[in-house]
Amino acid sequence: MKKKNKKVNAAILIIGNEILSGRTQDKNVSFISKWLNDKCGISVGEVRVIPDIEKKIILTVLELSSKFKYVFTTGGIGPTHDDITAQSISKAFKKKYTFHPEAYRILEKYYGKKNFNDGRKKMAKMPLDSDLIYNPSSAAPGFKTKNVFSLPGVPSILNSMIENCKKYLIKGSKIHSKTINILTVESNISKQLGVIQKKYKKFVEIGSYPFFRLGRVGVSIVLRSDSLNKINETNREIIALIKRKKIKLFK
Amino acid sequence: MKKKNKKVNAAILIIGNEILSGRTQDKNVSFISKWLNDKCGISVGEVRVIPDIEKKIILTVLELSSKFKYVFTTGGIGPTHDDITAQSISKAFKKKYTFHPEAYRILEKYYGKKNFNDGRKKMAKMPLDSDLIYNPSSAAPGFKTKNVFSLPGVPSILNSMIENCKKYLIKGSKIHSKTINILTVESNISKQLGVIQKKYKKFVEIGSYPFFRLGRVGVSIVLRSDSLNKINETNREIIALIKRKKIKLFK
Repeated sequence: MKKKNKKVNAAILIIGNEILSGRTQDKNVSFISKWLNDKCGISVGEVRVIPDIEKKIILTVLELSSKFKYVFTTGGIGPTHDDITAQSISKAFKKKYTFHPEAYRILEKYYGKKNFNDGRKKMAKMPLDSDLIYNPSSAAPGFKTKNVFSLPGVPSILNSMIENCKKYLIKGSKIHSKTINILTVESNISKQLGVIQKKYKKFVEIGSYPFFRLGRVGVSIVLRSDSLNKINETNREIIALIKRKKIKLFK
Repeated sequence: MKKKNKKVNAAILIIGNEILSGRTQDKNVSFISKWLNDKCGISVGEVRVIPDIEKKIILTVLELSSKFKYVFTTGGIGPTHDDITAQSISKAFKKKYTFHPEAYRILEKYYGKKNFNDGRKKMAKMPLDSDLIYNPSSAAPGFKTKNVFSLPGVPSILNSMIENCKKYLIKGSKIHSKTINILTVESNISKQLGVIQKKYKKFVEIGSYPFFRLGRVGVSIVLRSDSLNKINETNREIIALIKRKKIKLFK
């Protein structure tokens, strides 16, 4: 991973009709977001889910790649007719859609010359001059074109590949977070919490999320910041507020 | 629900830092998509997840509401400082952000006059002239402004409210689907499946999704169309292909 830079952001683009129809529950967004946050200090600023339509992929990739430092796409890099991510990204960046020599060798070795059919060969085609993202579980590599990382849609395979993106990323400052779980309803603390958020607006993002666990109603207050000191300061104010209001912590 | 119209589409807009950070796994996309598909004949054409930032909410709501017949937002309608969906939508559509008299009455009755504090009152504020979406589980209503439906982020509450959106929706043609699960790998059928997709391109959308279940590797072929006849015709061709290739079905 390269040198540090204060704030680094990314977008995630999920390509696939199966997510839009509700048939498949997406699991890649939370996995990629957490990994970027925790391992790379990179915040995800936007997620989109779009259908397997070439024009839509081209426009969205171009828009996100100009707005964000990095874009991670998932889905559409397999062997079937509905896998059109690689050719769409080629068109987006006006790069030739062609065999990557190393990807071709990896796949030919993996399947054996005899079984290396057209569908499998398709997985070695990508935008010219892409960098490979190696795949330790099922061989077919992902690829990086400009600032766009293309990964497969199957979560177990994607998860096995994500560490291989690291070498291409500029790391951001570590994003710290702290969660305070309390047994009350949001409206009981909303006013005072708003005052604290206003005070620390520049440094700490305070989120408030109701929860229902083990038959108890509560609120998770989540603090996020690149300054651990500011998180601790904010935390002390919130703990004082909770004590004043005689609210119990939920552990 | 109103009269039938052939194709009706919608977008889903998830508003919330907790989804972008990966802290919370979204469950609302697949629930809303399935409900719209199965109950209303409405296809979801795009999903976005954005942070709790007013400007971002305003721009995204305006873009999606002009591109899609309906927009469903989730999150950001609670009592705390980070709940800014209602005021952002008011600004987007240049409508006054004000108390909805009926929402105010509902919430006042639910909490009792004595406990109806500012945080709770905030949940009765929304864009002027919005229609209410009743909430049978925790009283605070959602609202419809123009073609935008605003629902809460907590899945159990959202789920309890969704049927109350129906009366405002124009129903599309029923979207039929059929899944064929087979025991092979995608690259073994990708070429022939591509030929079948080409033939039925105008009528049937064919998706191909690898699966790993009970230690078996397989492919789910999903057919979607508003014509049941065309689905059956496509299905027959795929079954014939599978037989020719001596591929087994997975049941």
